[in-house]
Amino acid sequence: MDFLYTNLIYLIPVFGLIGIAVMAVKAAWVTKQDAGDGDMAQLAGYIADGAMAFLRAEWKVLSYFVIVAGILLAYSGTTVHTSSPVIAISFVVGAFLSAFAGFLGMRIATKANVRTTQAARTSLSQALKVSFTGGTVMGLGVAGLAIIGLGSLFIVFFTIYVKNTGGDVNGEAMAKALDVLAGFSLGAESIALFARVGGGIYTKAADVGADLVGKVEAGIPEDDVRNPATIADNVGDNVGDVAGMGADLFGSYVATMLATMVLGREIKSNDMFGGIAPVLLPMVIAGLGLIFSIVGASFVRIRTETSSVQKALNIGNWASIILTAIATIFLVNWMLPNDTFHMLRDEIPGGGLKEGSLEFTKTGVIYSIMVGLVVGTLMSMITEYYTAMGKRPVLGIIRQSSTGHATNIIAGLAVGMESTVLPILVLAAGIYGSYHFAGLYGVAIAAAGMMSTTAMQLAIDAFGPIADNAGGIAEMSRLPEEVRHRTDNLDAVGNTTAATGKGFAIASAALTSLALFAAFVGVAGIEHIDIYKADVLAGLFVGGMIPFIFSALCISAVGRAAMAMVEEVRRQFREIPGIMEYKAKPEYEKCVAISTKASIREMVAPGLIALISPIIVGFIFGPEVLGGMLAGVTVSGVLMGIFQSNAGGAWDNAKKSFEKGVEINGEMYYKKSEPHKASVTGDTVGDPFKDTSGPSMNILIKLMSIVSLVIAPHLHKDLNHSPRLQREIHIQSMVMPAKQAVKNKI
Amino acid sequence: MDFLYTNLIYLIPVFGLIGIAVMAVKAAWVTKQDAGDGDMAQLAGYIADGAMAFLRAEWKVLSYFVIVAGILLAYSGTTVHTSSPVIAISFVVGAFLSAFAGFLGMRIATKANVRTTQAARTSLSQALKVSFTGGTVMGLGVAGLAIIGLGSLFIVFFTIYVKNTGGDVNGEAMAKALDVLAGFSLGAESIALFARVGGGIYTKAADVGADLVGKVEAGIPEDDVRNPATIADNVGDNVGDVAGMGADLFGSYVATMLATMVLGREIKSNDMFGGIAPVLLPMVIAGLGLIFSIVGASFVRIRTETSSVQKALNIGNWASIILTAIATIFLVNWMLPNDTFHMLRDEIPGGGLKEGSLEFTKTGVIYSIMVGLVVGTLMSMITEYYTAMGKRPVLGIIRQSSTGHATNIIAGLAVGMESTVLPILVLAAGIYGSYHFAGLYGVAIAAAGMMSTTAMQLAIDAFGPIADNAGGIAEMSRLPEEVRHRTDNLDAVGNTTAATGKGFAIASAALTSLALFAAFVGVAGIEHIDIYKADVLAGLFVGGMIPFIFSALCISAVGRAAMAMVEEVRRQFREIPGIMEYKAKPEYEKCVAISTKASIREMVAPGLIALISPIIVGFIFGPEVLGGMLAGVTVSGVLMGIFQSNAGGAWDNAKKSFEKGVEINGEMYYKKSEPHKASVTGDTVGDPFKDTSGPSMNILIKLMSIVSLVIAPHLHKDLNHSPRLQREIHIQSMVMPAKQAVKNKI
Repeated sequence: MDFLYTNLIYLIPVFGLIGIAVMAVKAAWVTKQDAGDGDMAQLAGYIADGAMAFLRAEWKVLSYFVIVAGILLAYSGTTVHTSSPVIAISFVVGAFLSAFAGFLGMRIATKANVRTTQAARTSLSQALKVSFTGGTVMGLGVAGLAIIGLGSLFIVFFTIYVKNTGGDVNGEAMAKALDVLAGFSLGAESIALFARVGGGIYTKAADVGADLVGKVEAGIPEDDVRNPATIADNVGDNVGDVAGMGADLFGSYVATMLATMVLGREIKSNDMFGGIAPVLLPMVIAGLGLIFSIVGASFVRIRTETSSVQKALNIGNWASIILTAIATIFLVNWMLPNDTFHMLRDEIPGGGLKEGSLEFTKTGVIYSIMVGLVVGTLMSMITEYYTAMGKRPVLGIIRQSSTGHATNIIAGLAVGMESTVLPILVLAAGIYGSYHFAGLYGVAIAAAGMMSTTAMQLAIDAFGPIADNAGGIAEMSRLPEEVRHRTDNLDAVGNTTAATGKGFAIASAALTSLALFAAFVGVAGIEHIDIYKADVLAGLFVGGMIPFIFSALCISAVGRAAMAMVEEVRRQFREIPGIMEYKAKPEYEKCVAISTKASIREMVAPGLIALISPIIVGFIFGPEVLGGMLAGVTVSGVLMGIFQSNAGGAWDNAKKSFEKGVEINGEMYYKKSEPHKASVTGDTVGDPFKDTSGPSMNILIKLMSIVSLVIAPHLHKDLNHSPRLQREIHIQSMVMPAKQAVKNKI
Repeated sequence: MDFLYTNLIYLIPVFGLIGIAVMAVKAAWVTKQDAGDGDMAQLAGYIADGAMAFLRAEWKVLSYFVIVAGILLAYSGTTVHTSSPVIAISFVVGAFLSAFAGFLGMRIATKANVRTTQAARTSLSQALKVSFTGGTVMGLGVAGLAIIGLGSLFIVFFTIYVKNTGGDVNGEAMAKALDVLAGFSLGAESIALFARVGGGIYTKAADVGADLVGKVEAGIPEDDVRNPATIADNVGDNVGDVAGMGADLFGSYVATMLATMVLGREIKSNDMFGGIAPVLLPMVIAGLGLIFSIVGASFVRIRTETSSVQKALNIGNWASIILTAIATIFLVNWMLPNDTFHMLRDEIPGGGLKEGSLEFTKTGVIYSIMVGLVVGTLMSMITEYYTAMGKRPVLGIIRQSSTGHATNIIAGLAVGMESTVLPILVLAAGIYGSYHFAGLYGVAIAAAGMMSTTAMQLAIDAFGPIADNAGGIAEMSRLPEEVRHRTDNLDAVGNTTAATGKGFAIASAALTSLALFAAFVGVAGIEHIDIYKADVLAGLFVGGMIPFIFSALCISAVGRAAMAMVEEVRRQFREIPGIMEYKAKPEYEKCVAISTKASIREMVAPGLIALISPIIVGFIFGPEVLGGMLAGVTVSGVLMGIFQSNAGGAWDNAKKSFEKGVEINGEMYYKKSEPHKASVTGDTVGDPFKDTSGPSMNILIKLMSIVSLVIAPHLHKDLNHSPRLQREIHIQSMVMPAKQAVKNKI
């Protein structure tokens, strides 16, 4: 035990290494599966090349961004308790690992897709095994790299700033270490934003463009090899749903741990780990979650052709959640002492606690974690209800498709708006409950609990686009009906898991943002964020507006890029004779280039809004107004995220329902009927909602919170409240006394 | 002067009486115009009967509501400084006057419509005169009744509670008078909500239903006498855009004055009016605005067939705004003393002011009013930009209509979301600026300034649906082309004024809500609404969600009612032979009945959400959480209101652009082209957005603020923070000391 007490901090990256090792084994297994015959291999090659081309183009732009932002960070990081250029290194590492995680996932996904198609020629169980193992590689890679990165950097910064200086683990020294560590999260989340937005624009420009000309105008099926945009469409699944989603969850996972660590510093704990148990706890929980995700993944298997794929995934998911929950109870009991905790910020300088402060015990911490797990589960279930076939919301959309395009759209928008109610009530209860049990630390650790099985969640999420691609390759290679039937089965499950995954992602983002928000308040040294003040209220309004303009930029980018795609496809049909008779090959690469160029160009504006607006507001109007803006962006972002994701999901499944036939007022309707055409319109509108702007909301709210957290030390109220100009004049004379003031206060 | 100093309070209702007198003259003039021949008169009769049938059905339901709510208010009004059953009387008067204002407007509108058609047979200038005079009757009726009602009740309550008791005009006595007066606003706003939602559902169910079967399926023009839903459609313009809008602005107008008065009580003023100048000021400004609206209205005229109707309206509008602004400068200078003011809540019991408190002078008050006028004007201009033909946003939607229904929808949604940016920045700057100049009172008086020319605004707004109806009657009576041409000209201007009117309405609602929010904080006796507290943040989330569920209920109600309408119209086309050949008359009354029944049934749920949720949250979680919820609902409501109204307006004008022909990529497209069909889908989706849910947002946020203000005394922190149950046990023993505490504090 003594060994563990002293060395737990060094063991954290080991969890990550285990994850990466298992990942490597699984990746090798996938790679050695049969990749099918010449036609399939060629198509898969196009997809893999297109995906890599996008990543290369994206990385080129992002590397400029990382360099510029890194230099700015290094240059500006010299006040209060943030020491410095080191934060830039932290930032670059975070950015690199996030990009690398996306790359790993995409590489395996573009291998697993064609191998799943090939496996589907033999059996459903084999096809599930290949596609889910591909997903697992992604999940383990993301979680493993996150834990290794965050854990290692924490060891380094803790050693430099705290251990070697003999600094206070609850004070200035640890604050410095965590401030620098925040750069890691900033790097990860920045890349996540660009990857999500860029990938989202890419995939939907291709998808919408391919559908509008292919399905609607030319009357050829989806994933038809004659459609010039079909390769771009399949590439899109990889760059959007795999790389984008991977970077997104990498960012959430890291941000959650970081926020909990920052709040954990403010808890004086008389534990066996040198008083840093509350800081280490979120990382250890994540490590356990990673291990139990590996265990859970081994439960995912089916025996016969008629077994339920959804059930197999559910068993794996529940296994990992329940095992992690049980392990967490023992872990918290072991790590935290039997004391009563409170936050340092609640102490009154003379002694005692402020009125209304909250005290809690380790049992409260356990309860908070359970609240997080329950909130995550409920959010996924509610999302499933609102987007699943055969349930009231989707049936309502189907019924309203019978009176045309317009009523289909109205119905979908209404479903999306209505679907915000239960998630918000669950979230509000979760905030209330986790705070009740363990204060602000409780809110953060609830998010950490929810995110602990990220590896498993991501495995399930990434399985979807792999199956989707596998189906696409089967269709394009014109494989036998039964193969397509098996991949369709997997794809249908993938649609549901994609929806529930989004519910989970938005819940985790909301809790993470609140935790970051609480961390921000502490670091900025403010005591209230009073919305009844006119300037804070103005900030709230401006913050609430940002998700609207962000969404507008995303969906109009998709609209524009899709139009360019439509025109290119129409041109190819017109100018290249013989495409329709399979005699000539379409110029796939031109469509890939359109999506790539559009997505890279269009991801810049929304990205900059998220990065720059907190900096402007924070430095001009001060931390309290910035706090108001963050609250606005969080509330509005969560609402817009749920609204858009669920509306899109419901439209998608309403359309899919027509494939099997639906009954409206006693009549049966199938594909190509008028109601089906109306449902295709809804699905197309829903595409950018559910795969571009909707899921970007998560990252938007997290990123803005992290940016605020990183600049918070510069806005510290003990420094001043005044605009930047004035600040810079005084800065030299103020830094020293301010540092002193902060030190005294802590 | 001495006479004025003593009797100004009694002169306020006189302004209202002048308005009503002018209204009566103008109404008589409209009534004596020629109502056309038999066919026209018959159609107009159908419309008038349908409109009255709706009002009667609505009033029946609302009278139950008013009785129940009145009894509850009377029963519960017995704590702290709200004394009593009197608030119930105040509530009933407000409800009655609001309904009566709607009735007056609708009666004149259903007369003016056919008379405008008849006038259009002679000249455009005559048609404008009749339709605009009809609108003026509505505007003067609403403003006149509001001033008479509020002014008279204030005289009564001031006399009972302050003058007769010799009570403190800044203290308990005046607070009681204003608390009771808040019942008037509650009554007005409750009726407004039901009228707006009910009317909105009615008009759009009829409109969407008529369009889907008539224009799309049967291929007959809009307002064709063969369409069974056409009468319902024209009735809808009256019950939604006239009666609904009238009740809406009646509510805003009253709420703004009330909020300013409540905040004005907290200003110690050594003026010549017995210290109540800050309380009287908003009512006197409104009175002046009413007079100058009458003056402005006289400027609205054109001379020739080619004169610009828009320009004539603009001249009238600007005249009333500028004259009111100038008069207000003199008024404030005359009424307020040359002192420095502050709010009572900023005083420290021992003397001096709290840190960060704001002091201001009468010049600051003038500046704040100017800020309000500028904000209102800018909001209207921005709205016009985003919804006008020939501007970038609408042109973008037109271009994206060329690739189908889905891209048209995507473009419109993007425009709506984007259109939130400038209004929010203007609003945030307005909040910041008006607060800067005169504190919380400044925010309220800015709203009062903006609302001062309500009579003129409403005249311009109500002119639109009258012109629209006139066009409908011309089409249905198959009058000559030139008549329809003139009414189309008026109708086109009416569409623009409808859009700018919505911008104005949302701006006024936002500022009013903030003023009410500030008043609520004072009356509830809380010092902060700290969003960094977990429970307040949870309240913010729940509040933010309410506009989403409210919108979902509204638009799905329209969807459902429109489907019922579609089925009825299809049935009539199928079962009544000869409709298409003008040989048989459709059963108009069946369609009218469907709209009436649906709208009455569907308005209940959203209405109850708005009324009940603040009560539940306030009593269970206390005033600070309720404050968080109000902030959430205000921000999210303003955003959703702007988003939905502007998206709807832009879609509408994109569709209208096809009537004259539009150029896309070098080709011309007209009505019946594929892009035009796509634009009709957008217009239909936009209908419930812009005329049902969007404009209801205004009332939702105001009503929830007023409900909170009315219950605020019961939540007073000096009473307790605890849940209601606990409260009721203690209430008797607490009331007296609490009253004492409040008195001492003030």
